[in-house]
Amino acid sequence: MSGENILALSGGVGGAKLSWGLDNITAKNTLTIIANTGDDFIHHGLYISPDSDTLIYTLAGVNDPERGWGRADETWHTHSTLGQFGIENWFQIGDKDLALHLYRNEQRKKGTSLTEITQHIAQKFGVNSRILPMSDDPVQTIIESDIGHLSFQEYFVKHQSKPCIRNISFNGSTEASISPELKTVIKDNGFKAIIVCPSNPYLSIDPILSIKEIKSFIESSSIPVVAVSPIVGGKALRGPTAKIMHEMDIPVSVMGIAEHYHPLIDGLVIDHKDKIMSSKMQSMGIAVQVTNTVMNCDSDKIQLAQDVVEFSQMISVKKDSL
Amino acid sequence: MSGENILALSGGVGGAKLSWGLDNITAKNTLTIIANTGDDFIHHGLYISPDSDTLIYTLAGVNDPERGWGRADETWHTHSTLGQFGIENWFQIGDKDLALHLYRNEQRKKGTSLTEITQHIAQKFGVNSRILPMSDDPVQTIIESDIGHLSFQEYFVKHQSKPCIRNISFNGSTEASISPELKTVIKDNGFKAIIVCPSNPYLSIDPILSIKEIKSFIESSSIPVVAVSPIVGGKALRGPTAKIMHEMDIPVSVMGIAEHYHPLIDGLVIDHKDKIMSSKMQSMGIAVQVTNTVMNCDSDKIQLAQDVVEFSQMISVKKDSL
Repeated sequence: MSGENILALSGGVGGAKLSWGLDNITAKNTLTIIANTGDDFIHHGLYISPDSDTLIYTLAGVNDPERGWGRADETWHTHSTLGQFGIENWFQIGDKDLALHLYRNEQRKKGTSLTEITQHIAQKFGVNSRILPMSDDPVQTIIESDIGHLSFQEYFVKHQSKPCIRNISFNGSTEASISPELKTVIKDNGFKAIIVCPSNPYLSIDPILSIKEIKSFIESSSIPVVAVSPIVGGKALRGPTAKIMHEMDIPVSVMGIAEHYHPLIDGLVIDHKDKIMSSKMQSMGIAVQVTNTVMNCDSDKIQLAQDVVEFSQMISVKKDSL
Repeated sequence: MSGENILALSGGVGGAKLSWGLDNITAKNTLTIIANTGDDFIHHGLYISPDSDTLIYTLAGVNDPERGWGRADETWHTHSTLGQFGIENWFQIGDKDLALHLYRNEQRKKGTSLTEITQHIAQKFGVNSRILPMSDDPVQTIIESDIGHLSFQEYFVKHQSKPCIRNISFNGSTEASISPELKTVIKDNGFKAIIVCPSNPYLSIDPILSIKEIKSFIESSSIPVVAVSPIVGGKALRGPTAKIMHEMDIPVSVMGIAEHYHPLIDGLVIDHKDKIMSSKMQSMGIAVQVTNTVMNCDSDKIQLAQDVVEFSQMISVKKDSL
């Protein structure tokens, strides 16, 4: 796949799995992943960037696949000591993970940008692909819920996704611009495909699309845009996607996903389980690829990545022939 | 000893040992320890206050007595991960220790003063005595050495006290004032004794005395001031005290210590090994107490604390009878 530059949009776990597959089948530096930073927050005074970190750990192969976040073979000594102090520690940071946050903290104090820091860290972990935060400017996902306004971490970790969601907004996104690095990549790279990973559309992908420059680049380019549905058989494989769709009166199905991303996407990759919905989506003008979208093992991730890239190439040929 | 308010000046290890003894023989909240903050520094963006931390850990009984700093039963996962990153990690922070630094970092970002934070931490550890930083203003011990100007940590940890010392200065001490808490304690407490712990006079006690308000309080008060010699038999029990004295052309003996603290102190506590120097010191107008000053076990610390307090009371009686 060398020479095929690919742009991916990703949140944490599910998105990171497909990103791993894409990283695996692409040549060094040809895959650029825009990471959601709407979940970023300050904890114990340290800047935490959960989705970038999950992407780095996953692509470096040091992630904990069971837990879905953080590092494998992790220990929790600092965390439990904070607990003994009686200090609020609902957000768990492992001892190894902490090293990354300390490094980022030190670099931030020196005035290094989030994008530069993310690049440095990815390099230190030997990551082959480019992981770029959606913006160096602060954008915060705010969940308006039945118990009040919550940041993503408060909603997802502290309250374990239990509050009922009424609305989601992205504080700061109107003023936020993309980093010089992302600007250059977008300008120079000649992407062959834009892939929307199977992350939570509302909490992981929408924050990325809330950045004007990213959205308008995708809208205005002729590059095929392909999303992978995070909903399989009417359920989310992980996380609160289905729950959110239900609370926001969106049909919990691949159709709900198709309608959400329409007209931004050219194609949607869905699971065999949802094959029956293909024609309905095609009638909306969305090309459909039916395959196995459940990534249980590495070969699943690689296969899905290949399917997605091939699908986008087919769409590209079609677009060109129009 | 209840009702006997005591003020102690202390650095790390040796000072913390005697402080533990003093804490052990005094009633709750009657011992106030002024901690040296000239060694404080920023590491990975976290504010580290080594002497305050050693005092807290020691008085809480969670210190590592072998190592002389940090906590007992410590682990080093974050530290070794930083090393794997290729990040400068000459200053070792244990995983449990890190919890304290994260808490301080969080509090500092909220604008809480160093003194307030130190009090909170000491409280959380159940410390009975008052540990107060010498100032909330930044004062940095600078070592002018044969390899250039070094901060204390660079000298002591990074270069393992090897550089040759030419001069020592305390950046910021002229402008620094004492905290409102220390002001109140000094004003209200009616101390029966001021004890200069057996810490390094040049690197641990002098920074404290470089704060005008502390020095002039000690100079102007009629409270007996008693120091415990950190030099025993011409040697320092730990750390670079003897080496520094040698490099600065100061006789490496209790006489060197007596001359350094003269005329601030009324009495000096020395070890049996140095008994022979007593009369020479007495001729300088310094009262001398000869006892065992080597603190190998808890009973040594308690015994020395008792000896020091009794000695100061004897001096007090003498002063009153003048």
